[in-house]
Amino acid sequence: MDQTKIIAFVVYPDLTPLDLIGPLQVIQPLGQFGPFRSVTVGARVEPMATDVGLKLQPELTFADVPSPFAIVVPGGAIGPIKGLLDDALMGYLRSAGDAAEVVASVCTGSLLLAGAGLLDGRRATTHWCFLDQLGKLGARPTRERWVEDGKFITAAGVSAGIDMALVLASRLAGEAAARTIQAIIEYDPKPPFGGVDWSWVEQAGLGASLMSSLAPEIQRILADRPDLQAKLS
Amino acid sequence: MDQTKIIAFVVYPDLTPLDLIGPLQVIQPLGQFGPFRSVTVGARVEPMATDVGLKLQPELTFADVPSPFAIVVPGGAIGPIKGLLDDALMGYLRSAGDAAEVVASVCTGSLLLAGAGLLDGRRATTHWCFLDQLGKLGARPTRERWVEDGKFITAAGVSAGIDMALVLASRLAGEAAARTIQAIIEYDPKPPFGGVDWSWVEQAGLGASLMSSLAPEIQRILADRPDLQAKLS
Repeated sequence: MDQTKIIAFVVYPDLTPLDLIGPLQVIQPLGQFGPFRSVTVGARVEPMATDVGLKLQPELTFADVPSPFAIVVPGGAIGPIKGLLDDALMGYLRSAGDAAEVVASVCTGSLLLAGAGLLDGRRATTHWCFLDQLGKLGARPTRERWVEDGKFITAAGVSAGIDMALVLASRLAGEAAARTIQAIIEYDPKPPFGGVDWSWVEQAGLGASLMSSLAPEIQRILADRPDLQAKLS
Repeated sequence: MDQTKIIAFVVYPDLTPLDLIGPLQVIQPLGQFGPFRSVTVGARVEPMATDVGLKLQPELTFADVPSPFAIVVPGGAIGPIKGLLDDALMGYLRSAGDAAEVVASVCTGSLLLAGAGLLDGRRATTHWCFLDQLGKLGARPTRERWVEDGKFITAAGVSAGIDMALVLASRLAGEAAARTIQAIIEYDPKPPFGGVDWSWVEQAGLGASLMSSLAPEIQRILADRPDLQAKLS
């Protein structure tokens, strides 16, 4: 009997690639340390648009991997908003997410998990601009780099998926495996201006300006769903 | 006259996606701060294999973007070794790299630049396992997170491309633009076990074991090129 534990990385249109690739690059080598196999899954095996032009093509369909051991759900700006209306995606998150032993998200991927009803009452995080929306979708938003609650592990925005994935790698295959992978991807970060200066971000009003730049598109996409519009705008 | 400065991210088979996506996610939003446009380019517009299963499809061909303002060249494990034998790729790096005002690489992407003759005598860096090989290809290997020499900026392994790209973003569009993007991708790294513990890496013999796992494949790929074999194995 095949004991391989499949870790399914969910690909859908208009996601933010770093949300997906950061954790994938960390988790994919786990197969060298234990019975793990990482795969990318989507509604169809075809190139899908992202928010940076490049297209991504998953290896398998949702139907090919109905019951993975773990799922990892990336986020995006507009992608997850569209995703909430995408029956194939939401259906997969509900069924695979329900059965999986580990459910992870990066950035606004947690909005999709919450929209699928998986995070009701759970502590979870998301991109710093979307914490309120995460709460309105039923989770208990928590501003940390990553948040573990039961089988769920959610990461903050975009690049936080790398840190979260190292936590997950350590949980699945031990700290030595995680540290080995960290060295191989040379994740010894030296941001040239230091970490994010949140007081500067606040002062510059970045959150408000990002959200107001997204608002018209979010309104348009959710035009027929006033229930979601109230939660997300 | 169109003053748009095109930043071309080079896509080729079997690259390491984080090498590409890290900088792309940082540089792509520069279009909001100045006359920049990021595009992904490859020999063909079709899905290309990577070293983590997922396929990547560039938006344009090399022929579509013969003279970009800047090029960014990702690396990989086996991908760049094959790349050194790929006439379309090497021809593009030579011509576009020669004409470009900025030439950047991530990880073993610098081996491709060196193989194209662009780094002769230049200070440059690469993944920590490949510094010797970079030297044998003509560059002056320097172990830093990123290295600037004239129009060249090279980054260390995989995730170092994010730090390098923030340096480049700041140079092109100013520090406020770079800091804004850093906040949007929430690059406020908190590696769960701290930075890479290089003494542990040394003790565990990770470099030797990684290189010996790659050696047979490198030998096989370069079977007809003893000149390159001598430099890369």
